[in-house]
Amino acid sequence: MKKKEKKHTLRIIPLGGLEQIGMNMTAFEYGDSIIVVDCGLAFPTEDMPGIDLVIPDTTYLKDNINKVKGFFITHGHEDHIGAIPYVLQDFDVPVYATRLTQAIIEHKLNERGLARSVKRKMVKYGQTITAGCFKVEFIRTNHSIVDAAALAIFTPVGTIIHSGDFKVDHTPVFGDPIDLQRFAELGKQGVLALMADSTNATREGFTMSEKSVGRTFDTIFAEHKKSRILVATFASNVDRVQQVINTAYQYGRKVVVEGRSMVTIIGLAQELGCIKIPKGTLIDIEELKNYPEHKTVIITTGSQGESMAALSRMASDMHRKVSIHKGDVVIMSSTPIPGNEKAVSRVINELSEKGAEVIIQDTHVSGHACKEDLKLLYSLLRPKFAIPLHGEYRHLQAQQKIAIEMGIPEKNTALLRSGDILEVSEANMKVTGRAPVGRILVDGLGVGDVGNIVLRDRQNLAQNGIMIVVLTLDRQRKMVVAGPNIVSRGVVYVRESENLMEEAQQVVEAAVDKCMRRQITDWGKIKGEIRDSLSEFLWKKMKRSPMILPIIMEI
Amino acid sequence: MKKKEKKHTLRIIPLGGLEQIGMNMTAFEYGDSIIVVDCGLAFPTEDMPGIDLVIPDTTYLKDNINKVKGFFITHGHEDHIGAIPYVLQDFDVPVYATRLTQAIIEHKLNERGLARSVKRKMVKYGQTITAGCFKVEFIRTNHSIVDAAALAIFTPVGTIIHSGDFKVDHTPVFGDPIDLQRFAELGKQGVLALMADSTNATREGFTMSEKSVGRTFDTIFAEHKKSRILVATFASNVDRVQQVINTAYQYGRKVVVEGRSMVTIIGLAQELGCIKIPKGTLIDIEELKNYPEHKTVIITTGSQGESMAALSRMASDMHRKVSIHKGDVVIMSSTPIPGNEKAVSRVINELSEKGAEVIIQDTHVSGHACKEDLKLLYSLLRPKFAIPLHGEYRHLQAQQKIAIEMGIPEKNTALLRSGDILEVSEANMKVTGRAPVGRILVDGLGVGDVGNIVLRDRQNLAQNGIMIVVLTLDRQRKMVVAGPNIVSRGVVYVRESENLMEEAQQVVEAAVDKCMRRQITDWGKIKGEIRDSLSEFLWKKMKRSPMILPIIMEI
Repeated sequence: MKKKEKKHTLRIIPLGGLEQIGMNMTAFEYGDSIIVVDCGLAFPTEDMPGIDLVIPDTTYLKDNINKVKGFFITHGHEDHIGAIPYVLQDFDVPVYATRLTQAIIEHKLNERGLARSVKRKMVKYGQTITAGCFKVEFIRTNHSIVDAAALAIFTPVGTIIHSGDFKVDHTPVFGDPIDLQRFAELGKQGVLALMADSTNATREGFTMSEKSVGRTFDTIFAEHKKSRILVATFASNVDRVQQVINTAYQYGRKVVVEGRSMVTIIGLAQELGCIKIPKGTLIDIEELKNYPEHKTVIITTGSQGESMAALSRMASDMHRKVSIHKGDVVIMSSTPIPGNEKAVSRVINELSEKGAEVIIQDTHVSGHACKEDLKLLYSLLRPKFAIPLHGEYRHLQAQQKIAIEMGIPEKNTALLRSGDILEVSEANMKVTGRAPVGRILVDGLGVGDVGNIVLRDRQNLAQNGIMIVVLTLDRQRKMVVAGPNIVSRGVVYVRESENLMEEAQQVVEAAVDKCMRRQITDWGKIKGEIRDSLSEFLWKKMKRSPMILPIIMEI
Repeated sequence: MKKKEKKHTLRIIPLGGLEQIGMNMTAFEYGDSIIVVDCGLAFPTEDMPGIDLVIPDTTYLKDNINKVKGFFITHGHEDHIGAIPYVLQDFDVPVYATRLTQAIIEHKLNERGLARSVKRKMVKYGQTITAGCFKVEFIRTNHSIVDAAALAIFTPVGTIIHSGDFKVDHTPVFGDPIDLQRFAELGKQGVLALMADSTNATREGFTMSEKSVGRTFDTIFAEHKKSRILVATFASNVDRVQQVINTAYQYGRKVVVEGRSMVTIIGLAQELGCIKIPKGTLIDIEELKNYPEHKTVIITTGSQGESMAALSRMASDMHRKVSIHKGDVVIMSSTPIPGNEKAVSRVINELSEKGAEVIIQDTHVSGHACKEDLKLLYSLLRPKFAIPLHGEYRHLQAQQKIAIEMGIPEKNTALLRSGDILEVSEANMKVTGRAPVGRILVDGLGVGDVGNIVLRDRQNLAQNGIMIVVLTLDRQRKMVVAGPNIVSRGVVYVRESENLMEEAQQVVEAAVDKCMRRQITDWGKIKGEIRDSLSEFLWKKMKRSPMILPIIMEI
C-alpha cells in the first residue's frame, strides 16, 4: 500500500470483523497518529479444519508502526480482546480498557507468560485518554458482560462515536444504566459519525432488560423445589451468574460454578466486586456431596453445545463429579450462536435422554440493541454520518435503513468491508482505497503457517482421503527396484475392498511399466502418468477422487 | 439376532430415523409377515466428510427376507423414499404409495436404470392393501408435499395408526383436508397404538394453513410491482409453487422454475394434475430476456443455502442465466433446517450485497403438526398406546408428555431408539430386544465401503494433515539405500516452514540411524521409532499431531 498523506482527512479502516463475525478491529488514522479500537479473534468456521482460532492481519498497522499510539478495547469478549496476545507482541503501545476488561486481558496474557510485555492502562468511565492527535473518552454502556464501554473519539475533523457491543438496559443487574445523558450531551455538541453495533438491527422493538431473566429464574426455582437445578450460560455473563446466585440464595440453595473459563471470569469479577455472593452460598464442587441435591445449583459452561465443555461432559457421563439423572432441571440460559444450533440440539437431546427436564423459554435476553434502541441512540447523537459496525452484511444494511429512516441521507451512510479505507472530512466521506486485510490462522503454536493451500489440502483429504504410491528407481539401470506400493488412508476400508486395491495396483504397475518401456526417467512425467491412470481408474470404478500422491525415490 | 417365535405378539422395530433425523424406516412383524413403512435416507452430518448420503442397515430385514411382504411409503420426501434405490434391490416385493409419491419414486429409479427391477403399486386414499397377515389402509393427510398419507395398519392384535409426516390443514392449496372423519371412525372402532410425527411437538398452538403463505405472497407482489421477484423454496413443495404461480398470474407476471430437482418435481406434478398452471404463465428460462424484469418471477431451489443450488449460484454470479442486482426482491420461502442456519445466512448476505431486498417474514409455514394438532389426533383416535415417531429425542419426549396429558398412562407410552424391538400385545407393550441397526454410508458408487475407521482417518486428516516418511532398505546389506524422505499434505505451508521441515528431516534420520545401528530390521519397529520421534518433535515444536505414515520399501 502506498500512502498519500492528505491533510485534514480522517481515515477509518476496519481491519476485521465485517465479512466474518468476530475479529473486531478498527483503525483510526489522522496525520501521524493511529489508534486501534478492539483486537478480537474469530472462531474457525467449518471450512477451516484443525484451526484453533483466527486473528486479523495487521500488516497495515505494522507498515505504520510509528504512528500507532494505542489500542482501545470496548469490552472483554473474545471477539474484541482475543487477538491481543498475538498482535500486541508487535506494538509497544498501551492497551486501554475498563476494569473487568483489563482483568480478563491480564489473565489471558498471564496464561501465555506475556503479562510483562504488554502495557496496560486501566480507564474509568468518563475518563479521556490523549493518543497522538486523538482524544478518546470511555462512556458507560450495557452489554452481556460487565464494564462495557462506548468510545467518543475526538478527532481533528469531529467526534466519532464507536458504540462497542451495547444494549440499553435501564435496570441492569450490576452498576448503572448506559450513560444516555453523556450521549445526549455529545449529540448536542455535534457528532460527526456514529459507528454502532448492528447485531440486532433486523430485530423489532427494544431489547429486554437482563433483569427479566432473573424473574424467569425465580419462577423456575419456585416450581422445581425438589429438583437439582443446572444453569448453562456464557462464561463471561457475570450478571447472569449473579442472578442465578440471587435466586439460589433466596431458595436456600448452595451454588457451584463449573467449567474452567467460567471459574476464571467469576473469580476475576469477585476480586473486582462486580459480583456479590452471599457468604456461604458458593461452594466447591467437592462439597456438593454434603448437600441434598435439591438444595444445590450448578452453574456451568457449555450452553453452546461445545463438546468439551462441562455441560456436554455431564450429559454424556464424562464429567468426573456430576452426571445428569432423572429429575434434574437444566436451564439453557443462552440462545445458540449461528452455526451452533445442531450442537445445542445434541446436548439437549442427551440431557433429555438422561431424564432431565430442559428449559429454554425466556431464559435468555440478548446483549445487543434492537431497532428501537438503535433509533434512540441516533436520536440522542444526531450524527452526520452513519457507519454501521458489528454484524453480517444484512445486519449492517438493516442499520443503514434505520439511519435513513432517522433522516440521514443515504450518501452519508457507509456500508464498509474489511480493509476499506474510508476517508472522512467534515463535509463528506468516501472509500478511497484498500488496506491489506485477511485472516491469520492459528493452529497449535503456529500463527499464519497454515494458509489457503494447506486448508484446501485438508478439505480435500477430508472429502476423499489419500492414496500414496511409492516406488524406488535405480537411476543407472533405469529400472524399478522396489514398489510400486499403494498405501491409502481415508479412502475405503481396505480389508473389505481387496479386489479394488488389487486392480488399482495393476493399474499403477501398468503405468510404471509404460514409463520404463519408453525409458522415461523424468520423475514429473512418471508421477503424472501414475496420477492420471489411477485417478481415471478410481473415478470409473467408484466415482471418487482421492488425493493421489506419487513418491519416487532413487538409489 | 436369534429370534424366538412368540405367537400373538406384534413386533414394531424402527430401523432408522430416531437418533438421527431422516432415514425413516419401521418394520412391523407378526408371525411370518413383515411389512416396512418408509425407506428414507439421511444427509451426512459434519462428522461424515465426503459422504453423499446415508441409508439404514437392513440386516434384520434381509435375515427375515421370506417374511417381508411389502414396503409402504407415506410420502415423497427423501427421508422417506431416498433409500429405495439401494434397499429394494434386495427385496422382490412391491412398493406401495400414492400417486405423486409413486411418480417421484419412479423418477428416482429411472435415473439409476432400476425402474424395471422394483415393483410399484399405486394406491388411492381409502384403499386397503393386504400384505401377509397385515392390512394397510392409506388415509389422506396434509403435509408440505402433495399426496401424503397416514397408514392404518390392521394387525392381528389391533389397529396401529402411523401418521407419516403430517399437519392438519383445513384449507389446503391442492386437494382435500386431512381425513379427520376416517381417523374418528377408526378411533371409534378402537385403536391400539398411535405412532405420530413429533417434529413440532415442542411447539405451542396449531400449524398455520399453507394458504396463509399465499396471502403473504399477495402482499409482497402488491408492494413490489416494479421489481423482479425471486422465490426460493423446497423443490418438493408443489403447493408453495402453486401459490407463487397463482399470485404471479394475478399480477401478470411470467414464471420460470429453476433448479434441477424443482423442475423435475413440478414436471411430475403437472403430469398428474397436482398443480394448475394458467396457459402462458410458465416460460422457459431462455425466454426471460423477452419480458421486462418486473413482469417475471423466478422460483428456485437453494432456500437452504446449498452452495450448488440455483439461488446460491445466482447470488455469486455463477448462474449462467440469472444474476442478482439492485432492486431484486428475493423471498426466502422456507426456514433453515437445523444445521443449515449458517449457509442460509451466507446466501442472504450475498443477495443483500448484490443489492437485493431479502424477505423472510411470514413466508413459510411448517408441514408438521404442532401441539394442539397432535392433541386433536389423540382425541379422535383415543389410542391405547402412544409410540412417538419422527423427531429428535426431546421431540419424542414432548409428544409423550402430550399423550400423558391426554390421559394415556406413562407405561403405555414408548420412547424408542432405532433397533429397539417393541413387542405389542392387546394388553401391554415392552422392548424385548435389539435388532441390528446402523448407518450405511454411500460415497460415490460405494455403498458401505466407508466405515468408522475410514471416517476417523478422514477427520484426522482434515484436522491435522498427513506426514509421509518413505525409505528404501537393502535387506541383505541391512542399510538404507534411499530416503528417508518426508512428504506432507495439509500440515504446514512447506515453503514458509523450511526450517521446520529440515529439523523434522533430521529427527527422522536420527530415528532411522538408531534402528540401523541396533540392526533392527523389523519394519514394525522401524516404523514405530519414526512415528514416535516425529510426533514427539511436532508436538513439542508446534503443538500439533498430524497423521504420520511411515512407508518402508525393500530391494
